Amino acid sequence: MTRPIGIFDSGVGGLTVLGALRERLPGEDLVYLGDTARLPYGTKSAATVQRYALNAAAHLAEHDVKLLVVACNTASSYALDALTAASPVPVIGVVEPGARAALATGARRIGVIGTEGTVRSGAYQTALARLAPSVEVEAVACPLLVPLAEEGWGDHPVTDEVARIYLEPLLARGVETVILGCTHYPLLRPSLERVVGPRVRLVDSASAVAETLARDHAGLLGTTGRRPGAIRLELTDASDRFLRITRAILGADPERLELVDI
Amino acid sequence: MTRPIGIFDSGVGGLTVLGALRERLPGEDLVYLGDTARLPYGTKSAATVQRYALNAAAHLAEHDVKLLVVACNTASSYALDALTAASPVPVIGVVEPGARAALATGARRIGVIGTEGTVRSGAYQTALARLAPSVEVEAVACPLLVPLAEEGWGDHPVTDEVARIYLEPLLARGVETVILGCTHYPLLRPSLERVVGPRVRLVDSASAVAETLARDHAGLLGTTGRRPGAIRLELTDASDRFLRITRAILGADPERLELVDI
Repeated sequence: MTRPIGIFDSGVGGLTVLGALRERLPGEDLVYLGDTARLPYGTKSAATVQRYALNAAAHLAEHDVKLLVVACNTASSYALDALTAASPVPVIGVVEPGARAALATGARRIGVIGTEGTVRSGAYQTALARLAPSVEVEAVACPLLVPLAEEGWGDHPVTDEVARIYLEPLLARGVETVILGCTHYPLLRPSLERVVGPRVRLVDSASAVAETLARDHAGLLGTTGRRPGAIRLELTDASDRFLRITRAILGADPERLELVDI
Repeated sequence: MTRPIGIFDSGVGGLTVLGALRERLPGEDLVYLGDTARLPYGTKSAATVQRYALNAAAHLAEHDVKLLVVACNTASSYALDALTAASPVPVIGVVEPGARAALATGARRIGVIGTEGTVRSGAYQTALARLAPSVEVEAVACPLLVPLAEEGWGDHPVTDEVARIYLEPLLARGVETVILGCTHYPLLRPSLERVVGPRVRLVDSASAVAETLARDHAGLLGTTGRRPGAIRLELTDASDRFLRITRAILGADPERLELVDI
C-alpha cells in the first residue's frame, strides 16, 4: 500500500506544481485538491483563508497522504503555521522554495508579485530577510493578473499594459529577479517577459518545490518503485472555465477528475 | 414587530440594489447578506451557485425577512426557480426587472453584458424573448469586468480597452441599449459610456428592482411608518478589499456590519 503526496491549491493554478512534481518524482502517486468552489483566496482575509486551508488539509488526510504540498501562495502565506500545527504529516509551502530559487539567481534586488493576501502577509519579504538580510526586496500586489491568466490572456496587449502599471515600481527600483508569487502567473510569462525585458529573471516556485521535496523528504519518497505514479484530481467546483484552464496547464485532459464537497 | 426585506448578493456589488431600495422605500428595514467568502459566483457552475444561493436564503430566513431580493445576476440567472421553490416568502430577482427596464427604452436591438454564468444561463435572453419576441438580443460574457470594478478602475484606459474588446460584437450589431447584467458594472460607467458612445443607453437593474417591489408587493410594504428603516449588513468575509468597495458604493462606512458564517 503506497501513500500519495497531497497537493492543495485554491484552484487549478497549482497544477504547475503538480507538473513539476510529476517530472522530478515520476513514480509518486499524486492527489491534487483544487478548491475551485471558493476561489480566489488572494482577495480574502487571513481568517477565511486559514479556515479553507484547514478544511482542504483535512480532506486530503482522508486520502492518507504522506506529505502535504500547499501549492497556493496565499494559503502558504497565511496558513502554513496553522497547517503545520494541525497536520500529522510534513507540510511544504511554496514561499520558502520560491525565495531560495530567487536568491540562487544571485540577485541583490528582488521583486515579488502576488495576490493582495500574499503581499500583505509579508511572507516572501520575511523569508528573504531571514535567508539573506542584505538583499533588497520590493513586493507589489497584482489583483488583476489571476483573472487575466484565467481569461487566457497570457500573451496579450491588455496584460502587457496591466503588468506595466503593476511592475513599474519594481523596475524603477532596479530589481534583477522577480518572484512569480502566485501559481497562475507562469501562464502570463509571454506578457511578463516583454514587460520586464531580457535582463530581469522571472522565477516561479514549481520546480523549487519539487527540489525541496526530493532533498528534505527523501525518506518518504521512492517507495513506489519504477511504475509511473497515478494522478488523481479533485475539484470542489467543475465549471467549463476551470476545465479549460486545467487543459491549458496539463496540455491534456486529466486522467481522473472528481468533484468533491469539502 | 416589523419584518425586514432581505437582499442577497455574492459580494458587495448588490449594494447598488440596496441603495435603490433605500431611496424608493426609505421606511423599510433592510438586511443585506454578501457571500464575500465564496465569491465570485459568475465563474462557477450552476450546481455550486444554486447550493450557495439556497444557503444564503436559509440564513436570511432566520432574520424573518418578508421578501427576498436576489441582487446577484448570476444567482438570479441560475437559482431563481430553486429559491422560489424553497422560500416561504416572495423572491424577486434582478433579471426580469432589468429586461423590462431595457425594453422601456424603446430599443429594438438590446445587448446584454454579464458574467459567464449569467450569459450561459440564457436568463436575460429568455426573459427578453418572452416579453418582446421581435427584439434582437446579443449577449456577451465579460469575465474581467468584475475584477476591474473591484480594482477601482471604473474610469481607466485599461478598462476602456477591455470593454472595447468585449463590446465590439454588440456595437457591430448596432445595439441601442446595453443591459449591465451584473451589479458590479455600474461602477464602470465612466469607461463603459466612453466605449459605447452617446447614442447607446446603459441600463442597470437596481432602480427597476425597487420599482418592481413597490408595484407588485405593495401589500407587504409600508408597515414600518415614517421612521427611516434600519440597515444591517452581513458579510461572510470582511477583507479590507470588500470594505473599500462597500465604502465606494455606499459613499460612507456602513452603519452596522457583521461577519457571519453561513
